[in-house]
This record gives sequence, C-alpha cells and structure tokens, in this order.
Amino acid sequence: MKLQEIIEIVGGTLKGDGNLEITGASGLGFAGPGDISYVGEAKFLPELKDSAAAAIFIQNETETDKAQIIHPAPALAFAKTLARLHPTEKPPAGVHPSATVADSASLGADVTIASNVCIESGAVIGDRCVLQANVVVGKNCVIGSDTVLYPNVTVYADTEIGSHVMVHAGAVIGADGFSYTPDEKGRHVKLQQIGRVVIGDHAEIGANTCIDRAAFGKTVIGQGVKIDNLVQIGHNCVIGDHTVIVSQTGISGSCTIGKHTIIAGQTGISDHVTITDQVTLLARSGVFRDITEPGMYGFAPAMKGVDLMRFMPVFLRLPEMASQIKALERKLESIEKA
Amino acid sequence: MKLQEIIEIVGGTLKGDGNLEITGASGLGFAGPGDISYVGEAKFLPELKDSAAAAIFIQNETETDKAQIIHPAPALAFAKTLARLHPTEKPPAGVHPSATVADSASLGADVTIASNVCIESGAVIGDRCVLQANVVVGKNCVIGSDTVLYPNVTVYADTEIGSHVMVHAGAVIGADGFSYTPDEKGRHVKLQQIGRVVIGDHAEIGANTCIDRAAFGKTVIGQGVKIDNLVQIGHNCVIGDHTVIVSQTGISGSCTIGKHTIIAGQTGISDHVTITDQVTLLARSGVFRDITEPGMYGFAPAMKGVDLMRFMPVFLRLPEMASQIKALERKLESIEKA
Amino acid sequence: MKLQEIIEIVGGTLKGDGNLEITGASGLGFAGPGDISYVGEAKFLPELKDSAAAAIFIQNETETDKAQIIHPAPALAFAKTLARLHPTEKPPAGVHPSATVADSASLGADVTIASNVCIESGAVIGDRCVLQANVVVGKNCVIGSDTVLYPNVTVYADTEIGSHVMVHAGAVIGADGFSYTPDEKGRHVKLQQIGRVVIGDHAEIGANTCIDRAAFGKTVIGQGVKIDNLVQIGHNCVIGDHTVIVSQTGISGSCTIGKHTIIAGQTGISDHVTITDQVTLLARSGVFRDITEPGMYGFAPAMKGVDLMRFMPVFLRLPEMASQIKALERKLESIEKA
Repeated sequence: MKLQEIIEIVGGTLKGDGNLEITGASGLGFAGPGDISYVGEAKFLPELKDSAAAAIFIQNETETDKAQIIHPAPALAFAKTLARLHPTEKPPAGVHPSATVADSASLGADVTIASNVCIESGAVIGDRCVLQANVVVGKNCVIGSDTVLYPNVTVYADTEIGSHVMVHAGAVIGADGFSYTPDEKGRHVKLQQIGRVVIGDHAEIGANTCIDRAAFGKTVIGQGVKIDNLVQIGHNCVIGDHTVIVSQTGISGSCTIGKHTIIAGQTGISDHVTITDQVTLLARSGVFRDITEPGMYGFAPAMKGVDLMRFMPVFLRLPEMASQIKALERKLESIEKA
Repeated sequence: MKLQEIIEIVGGTLKGDGNLEITGASGLGFAGPGDISYVGEAKFLPELKDSAAAAIFIQNETETDKAQIIHPAPALAFAKTLARLHPTEKPPAGVHPSATVADSASLGADVTIASNVCIESGAVIGDRCVLQANVVVGKNCVIGSDTVLYPNVTVYADTEIGSHVMVHAGAVIGADGFSYTPDEKGRHVKLQQIGRVVIGDHAEIGANTCIDRAAFGKTVIGQGVKIDNLVQIGHNCVIGDHTVIVSQTGISGSCTIGKHTIIAGQTGISDHVTITDQVTLLARSGVFRDITEPGMYGFAPAMKGVDLMRFMPVFLRLPEMASQIKALERKLESIEKA
Repeated sequence: MKLQEIIEIVGGTLKGDGNLEITGASGLGFAGPGDISYVGEAKFLPELKDSAAAAIFIQNETETDKAQIIHPAPALAFAKTLARLHPTEKPPAGVHPSATVADSASLGADVTIASNVCIESGAVIGDRCVLQANVVVGKNCVIGSDTVLYPNVTVYADTEIGSHVMVHAGAVIGADGFSYTPDEKGRHVKLQQIGRVVIGDHAEIGANTCIDRAAFGKTVIGQGVKIDNLVQIGHNCVIGDHTVIVSQTGISGSCTIGKHTIIAGQTGISDHVTITDQVTLLARSGVFRDITEPGMYGFAPAMKGVDLMRFMPVFLRLPEMASQIKALERKLESIEKA
C-alpha cells in the first residue's frame, strides 16, 4: 500500500511522500525499512531515532526524516493499518473428514471445520466461522458469523456466542457453576446448573479462560468485552459491554460488572458484587463490596484512587511509624519522670 | 411431578395443594409459573413476592399465595428436587468409531466413549462412565463407575479416579509435580515424578484445574471433594474428604488439608503446610504455616478470624494513625518547649 | 543396578556393599527395601530411621545400617539415579492413522505422533519428538529433537520450540498477546499480534500454562527455564536461562526476567518490568518496578528481604500500635491537663 492509500482509510495529515510504498506495520523497535509504525505517547519519542520504520503515525509533527502521518489517535490509526497489512489468515472453507458433525447440527456458508472437531446435535454454526482442530461444541449451541474458535476450545451445551468473536485455545465456555449445599453429614450436594452462557459480538476470550454457565438464567459477556488468559468468570455474572478483564482475574458468581470498565490482572471480586461503568481496577485488587462511582480503585480490600494515594506511602513506612511511636514513648516517659 | 410426590422424596410439611403439578425447579428470580423454588435464607424473602414460582421450600411458614413446603433444609431439599427434575442428560452408550481404545484397555458396561477419545493400554473404565469428546486417558488408569469426563480432559498414566466423579473440560490430572534440583552450573535437573493421583468417589474437579501426580506415592483428593476451575494442587497433597476449594486457589506440594474444610478463591498455601479439619479460609488467604485449630482464617499471612477482626479496622485507617502520631509529636514538642 | 555402578555414573564415596542390587529410587518415606533414597538436608535425618531404603545419598556420613553414598550434592545424585532407574517411558515411534499431518509438514526420524494429533502446513518436527494425543501444532512451527508435547497442547503458528523440551497437557503456546487500543466510542480495537514465541532447549512448561506470542518480534523462554502449571507469560516477555516460575504466577507484557531467577507461586509482575539475574521472589509477590540487584524480595509491593524482615513484624502487630498510640494520647492529655 502507498502511504496515501493508508491515509484514505484511516485519516490523518501527511508530512512526506504519499507514494511511499508501505509493505508492513510494526512497533518502533521492530520495524524494518518498508514498515509503518507509530508513536503512541510522547515518552516513546526517543525510540523514534533508532527505528528503521519508513513512516509513522504521530499526534504532533516532530523532527525526523521519516514520513509522518499526523493523526489525533496514532495507536488507533496504526491498529487499523496493521489489521489491513497483516490480516489474520483465514484457512480455506470446508469440513475436515475427521470432524464429527451431528446430523441435526447446522453449518453456515463457508465455514472451516478443522480436524477432529466435534459438533453435537442441534448446534448452529454461523457463516464463515472457523472451528480449529479439536474444538468441541455441545448440543444446541448457537454461534454467530465470522467467529473463530482456536484449537481445543470446549463449548458446553446451550451456549450462545455472537459474531466476530475470538475464543483462544483451551478456553472452556459453559462448564457448571460452582454451587453446592451441605447435607446433614456435611457432604456437598450439587445444585444442578441449568442456565447457560451468552457471549456478545466482537468479544475476545483468552486461552484457558473459564466462563461458567448460570445456575439459572444466563451468564452474560457483553459486546466487545475483551478477556485475557486464565480468567475465571463465575455463574450468573454479567459483564458490561466493552469491558476489559486482564489475566488471572477471578470474578465470583452473580457479579454485575459495568460497561467500559478495566479490570487489571490477578484481581479478585467477591460474589454478588456490583461494579458500575467506567471503573478501573488496578492489578491484584480485591473487591469485596459494590463500587458505585466510576474512577480508579486498587489494593485489597479495594479503595478509591485518592484514598490509595494517601494509604500506600503510610503503609510502606510502617517500620518508621513504629520507631516514631517508640521515640514518643521514651520522650513521654522522660517528661513524666521530670 | 406433583408436590406431594416431591415431599415423599425430600421430606417436609406441605402448606398448599399436594396435587399441584411441578414441571421445573429454578431460583426465585428465574422461576416460571410451573416451577418450584426455595428461600434459602431469610434475607431472600423480599424476592419471594416478585417470583413467579408456584411453590417454594422454606424453613418457616411465611405469608404468600404460593404453595409452601416447610423444610429444615430448604436449599438441600431444593437441590435434590432440581436434580430430579433437571437431571444431567446422559448421552447414549457406545464407542464412537473415531475413538482410539487400546486393545488391553477395559471398558465397563454401558460406557459412552465420544469422538476422538483416546484410551491407552491397560486403562480400566467403569460401568456407565461418560468420556466426552477428545478426552485422553493414559496407560493403566482406573476409573470407577458413573464418572463423567468432559471434553478435552487429560488424565496422565496410572491415575485412579473413583465413581460418580465429574471432571470438567480441560482439567489435567496427573501431570508431573514441579520438582528440580540445581546442578553445579545452576541448571535445574528434574526429579522424575513417579507417583500418581488418586481421586475419591463423588469428587468434582473444575475446568482447567491441574492436579499434579506425586513425586513418590500419591496425591490424594478425598471423597466428595469439590474443586472449582483453574485450581492448582501440587504433588503429594492430601485433600481431606468433603473439602471445598474455590477457583484459582493454589496449594503447593506436600500439603495436607483436613476434611470438611472450605478454601475460598485465590488462596495460596505454601508447601508442606498442614491444615486441620473444619477450617474456613477466606478469599485470597495466604497460608504459610500449619493451621491446627478449626475455625475461620483470612488475609495474608493468614490470621484467625478474631485477630483479623481486630487487625482490619486498624489496617484500613493507617493514614489516620500517621496523623495521630504527627499530632502527638507536635504536642510533645510544644510541651518540651514549655 | 549395583550400588557400585550408580557411583560410577553419579560419583560419591561408598560406605557399604558395592554389590548391593538397587531396583528403584524413592523418597525416604516412600522407599521400599530395594530402593535407594537420599537425605537432602540435615532436617530430614530423623526420617532416615523409619525408611525401608537399602541405600542413601547423604552429604556427611551418618550412623545407619543402610549403605551410604557420601556425595556433596545428594539431591542431584539422587535425581540422576532416579532418571536412570525410572526413565520416562517413550511410546513406540510411528504416526497414528487418526493423526492429521499436512503434506508440507516435515517429521524427523523416530517421531511418535499419537491419535488425533494435528500438524499444520510447513511445521517441522525434530527427531524422536513425542506428540501425544490431540496435540495441535500450527503452521510453520519448528520443534527441535527429543521434545515431548503432552495431550491437548496447542501450539499456535510460527512458534519455535527447542530440543529436550517438555510441554504439559493443555498448555497454550503462542496465543495472541492482549493488546487493544480504544476507538472514539471506547470500543477496544485489537492490535494484531504478528510476533511469535521461541522456547529454548531443556525448558519445561506446565499444564494449562499460557505463553503469548509477541505483538512484534518474539516472546522468549530461555534455555532450561522451568515453568509450573497455570502460569501466564505475556507478549514480548524475555525469560532468562535457567529461571524457575512457580504455579499461577502472571508476568505482564514486555517484561525482561533475568537468568537463574526464582519466582514463587501466585506472583504478579507489571508490564515492562525488568528483573535482573539471581533474584528470588517469594510467593505472592507483586512487582511493579524494576529489580536491579540480585537477592530475595517479597510482598506486594515487593520489597527487599532485609526491608521485609523489618516490615512484617511491625505490620503484624498493627493493632498493638493502635493501642500504643491511644495510650500515648491519654498520657499526653493528662500531662496537658496537669
């Protein structure tokens, strides 16, 4: 693609030669001579000098011999260009002879069903879906169009997955929620989990992540939700649209998470907690109560950003506090003696 | 089922029409007009009014137009009824032609072996077991009767699994324990893990959970133990009967966990720790020492419930403590000056 | 093997009968009468008396009726002997008829390709590799010799794995890094992840662990790195040679971890953090900043061992500190009154 063509697609103002041929897109430190790159934040400017990139997206014009596309959102423009120049390769359509597809399952147009895939009865697979090797889709699942399930994904019966969803390898969608009630001898009697999981369009689910089916009703992953690897989503959770959940976070049963919320890695959220929209939880937060106001929260138990800013410096100089107290006690003693 | 038939099975005292036809069971907020539901705790009573349920299990009679079954353990009675009305569907018995079953493996009566299952030599699969698609059972494994392995489960060689066990998708039973010893160059030399895993009857193992084989001897999961998703159980652990382990908990090697213990989510337990029976660990506990008395523990490092009740309020008002100390210092200074 | 033969292989000085026939190796508490065992540390000496072992490796001669091999590194000598006496059984070479191997894939000599394995186009599998049931190897992957992939492992396209590597069941190598940029409506636009994963020789990767492909360039797992189960390694991380990472640890994107470093379980490391060589991180550490000096660190936020030794005792007697402050306030008040 020529630079000019890129601008026609993603916008921006060109400083340089629009006829420059761009053959790839890459990060500043990785780009080769035919690549376009980007300066996402001013702090990355020093990396520009050593980059071999031919052109960059940048918010404000800078001094460089590279071609520049001045763009209000360089990272976004770059992401779109990257997707153009390096699209995910779609394997050829067709059903591999080793796949097991139930007679009553329905396959859309141009689907790719790879080796050893198992699609059970009543399942509906939308147009252009890609089910990679060893994927298992249970009875009566419904999957929209253009969705990709990577190898060894398990989708339990009755799950509904939207369109343009990606589910990475090893993820388990719709396993039983974790729910028991003790009998008279303290043995745990299972509460059958008769609900299901519904995943919205454009969601992405990470490798080996688990999303449990609802006890009753449904566990809901909203549109455009992005979930990283090894995350646990309990039964009956509702995750709002365009929320991001980073690796190894665990969300207990029956939580409601707002829209456009960001939950950083290794966070834990107790059951039945409600978190409003536009919340950011720092890494390793422990949330045991509802969060009703947007903003940043962190630590365990989670506190507001402003409180955390007061808390952490004191917390970290605890040994000094102990010394201060000891000094006070000594002084007081000598005053008392006096 | 008629209400009267339900009572005959699970007990309780009827207030209402025993001929009422019950077609399903569901949570209060999910129940339809033919459903039976339950009020597990008094705090859920307000939900009763808006529920469409036809009948409920409840501990003490309440004012409602629904039929009531007065029962000392409403949740338990409900769980049993739910299992009756919504049993897990058992796929038809048979061995799928795409399965690979070693000649020397032994299959019990009425087993279901789904597509692409691999059963290696010497393995013994009990009556009525269900091995769903892509399950792999290693050499010389022994599985009791009525056990269900969900898709993509891997069971390493020599594992023993009891009867009526459920293992959810992606779980890995019997992978090598994590054990090395450094050589003279600091390279880590593997200690072969020649032990195995033994899982008791009625256990349930969550999706993508890992239970490591013993270095020597066995890793033991007791009877009726319930383990959630993404849990790590190290080599040579012994988990007592009827213990519950919630998601993302990690138990290091050679731990002994008592019976009827509850370990909440994201807890971590150091190696060689022993925890007695009837302990409850709150979410995100970090246990670095033995726990010898039953009761509730929490925080990291874990402390007794009573200590935690004293600790947490002080902990959370650390910034105020710092201000108090500063105020004391100022006062003392002015006293000293005076 | 005779004791004398063992010494010829692993070294040490014999106290006892070199003709003693050793039929197995096991831990002190597990050893039978034909077994050799070891006393790794003096604290395990009391277990020696009750052990049925016929012979032991030990650092300093002790009083016992068992044969002793005096060795400067008993655990290492034992590990080597164990590997001799109980080698991992290698399944017979050959390609199972149910495997799907692309025409353009290349298989080395004496490989074992088990049932339902899927090897995509352009992949190169080295000599004597074992790909167990249901393993999926993506396009253009390159795997060295003598590497073992356990069942249900997924290796995404373009991954490079060295020789003598073990990857345990359910691990996912090369899934997309977690990287998005928001558009004008706060929807998260994916940054295509066009890099790959490179794993060095003699690495071991735990069950259900996830190692993400680089955004650009490569995610690198060094030689001899040992990674436990359920670990998350983010995109573009570089893990130094002979580093050990224990279960449920999460390392965010673009971290650089030194060589011969030990990261205990449930640790979390923020993105773009650099940790030098020879660092030990205690369990559940939270590392948010670079660590530039070797040594021991722990807690969250992580602090140096010496600081932690000052910090923890104060931390744990916070309620006493609160009482001390209250007492000081009272005294001061009475002084002021006076």
